[in-house]
Amino acid sequence: MPVGTLGTVKGVTTSQLAETGAQMVLSNTYHLHLQPGEEIVADAGGLHRFMGWDGPMLTDSGGFQVFSLGDLNRIDDEGVDFRNPRNGSRILLTPERSMQIQMRLGADVAMAFDQCPPYPATENDVAEACRRTHAWLGRCADAHQRDDQALFGIVQGGCFPHLRDLSARTVADFNLPGIAIGGVSVGEPVEEMHQIVRQVTPLLPADRPRYLMGIGTLREMAVAVANGIDMFDCVLPTRLGRHGTALVGGERWNLRNARFRHDHTPLDASCPCIACRHHTRAYLNHLIRSEELLGLTLLSIHNLTHLIRFTTAMGQAIRDGCFSEDFAPWEPSSRAHHTW
Amino acid sequence: MPVGTLGTVKGVTTSQLAETGAQMVLSNTYHLHLQPGEEIVADAGGLHRFMGWDGPMLTDSGGFQVFSLGDLNRIDDEGVDFRNPRNGSRILLTPERSMQIQMRLGADVAMAFDQCPPYPATENDVAEACRRTHAWLGRCADAHQRDDQALFGIVQGGCFPHLRDLSARTVADFNLPGIAIGGVSVGEPVEEMHQIVRQVTPLLPADRPRYLMGIGTLREMAVAVANGIDMFDCVLPTRLGRHGTALVGGERWNLRNARFRHDHTPLDASCPCIACRHHTRAYLNHLIRSEELLGLTLLSIHNLTHLIRFTTAMGQAIRDGCFSEDFAPWEPSSRAHHTW
Repeated sequence: MPVGTLGTVKGVTTSQLAETGAQMVLSNTYHLHLQPGEEIVADAGGLHRFMGWDGPMLTDSGGFQVFSLGDLNRIDDEGVDFRNPRNGSRILLTPERSMQIQMRLGADVAMAFDQCPPYPATENDVAEACRRTHAWLGRCADAHQRDDQALFGIVQGGCFPHLRDLSARTVADFNLPGIAIGGVSVGEPVEEMHQIVRQVTPLLPADRPRYLMGIGTLREMAVAVANGIDMFDCVLPTRLGRHGTALVGGERWNLRNARFRHDHTPLDASCPCIACRHHTRAYLNHLIRSEELLGLTLLSIHNLTHLIRFTTAMGQAIRDGCFSEDFAPWEPSSRAHHTW
Repeated sequence: MPVGTLGTVKGVTTSQLAETGAQMVLSNTYHLHLQPGEEIVADAGGLHRFMGWDGPMLTDSGGFQVFSLGDLNRIDDEGVDFRNPRNGSRILLTPERSMQIQMRLGADVAMAFDQCPPYPATENDVAEACRRTHAWLGRCADAHQRDDQALFGIVQGGCFPHLRDLSARTVADFNLPGIAIGGVSVGEPVEEMHQIVRQVTPLLPADRPRYLMGIGTLREMAVAVANGIDMFDCVLPTRLGRHGTALVGGERWNLRNARFRHDHTPLDASCPCIACRHHTRAYLNHLIRSEELLGLTLLSIHNLTHLIRFTTAMGQAIRDGCFSEDFAPWEPSSRAHHTW
């Protein structure tokens, strides 16, 4: 899922987004609550109508942003009290409030309101966050009352296997239409994240989508898919694009680099995106050096296309019976097996 | 002509640009000379290939920017000596050098290197600029040697009718494939500009395109077209778009305004652009307030579409025999006569 924080994938129109092959888009409840506010989105007919995207959408719960971006006043069993950075007013976000906001936003999937402890955190703190997350999940399930919207639970537990085990079993017992693994992509070593995925996914129902939150690098996605993950979200392709970086094969290229100044070849000859079909590395280098908006748009589109191609190729390889954790369809040795 | 200063109409892809109905695009020789430099553009196969635009293109001479933006050292009959703002090096721009650069850039139309005096200027200064502009035009015509590129001359003369008369007759004598009226849109009252157009166009060959430089507001274009002008360029639609302003009918709307927050109707129901077809005023208001890149792109596309619709409608009204200086096809009283 490309990330459309404020109801827009930054710098990309909805038709360009559809051309990347993207199906589902994530938007952030925290940001949309602050601007324009869920009432305006609801009045527009919901988030799909508001942003002009008729594909599937998911909203997060707002909790992660409150913990990482908000001016936090207090966390207790009731919820999270924080200060609105735009006008200084105090906002209490609770499981019930998150559900109300997400139901008004009207995405296809709403996420449970959880507590995501920072990394590293003590075992006591993580255990406490797990306890609260599970209690809040019960309140979310009670408060969520929109039949056309799926509620996903979130497994916490940090890097403590017995807490992950407890959390996975507790969340699975709610029998929700999908389950996410949260508390990853918060600064832990990538090996710890892989270990969490390997441990947790076997504990989740096989017939429901499994969503690994905040992950979107190629290698991590391949490992996660090999272990049974179905969904991802990540700001990386668009954030890298806005910083002049392109994803090509398994590499990251800084398009500002002087080696591209005279390079009149496509960015990635295998890629069907407009940046690669209509333009050259030299032109992209020129746009990035000139700080032209078009450069950010083109690289964001390319990077999104690259990730979607990769996930699509993973799906094909799985169906063809030749998928593995080291999946790298752009490598010459793989080309006999995979379309790229 | 939308303005693509650095080989890109800011924030707009070439396919979005084509969808606005735009035919010809202007790029700036001064800016492209400084970044990426005409050698890189020539190596790419010319400006069309470099920016991925296969419609007609025009480059200005660089003179206007040197006079208005450059750190000017000296102007004399040889040319203009200025300091490169990027690295402090000194650059001498002469008629011959401007032709060399524009031939390398390879647009369909190159503009003669002229001296455009500021407004207001004394009669002596304008007369001197005219004399130099005419001498430089001779050198441009000698130096220009690309059969697949048209060279347009530029009429100067400020607000002095006898100097405009002299300049128009002198430039017309060169028998070039097109002629521009320069030295307008430099701060003079709009009535002076209208007066210049009324005086100069009858002196220009009727079978060649006449280009009024730097003008692109609806009312001024209508008056100019009524007096025989064929071509315009203006940064206004994209610059206004980047500042959150939309052109609707004959008005300018600031989309940041609170009155649009809850307005879930299209920006302009008569407009076929993606901003108007897929989105609402409330969504655009949200994007502008959030300083989202997409807002700038959508409003730029809308404003370009608006101007191109207007010029297209002027052409149709002329063919229908019902065009006049106060042309305003969006007004209810005009709808019986004009498609809008």
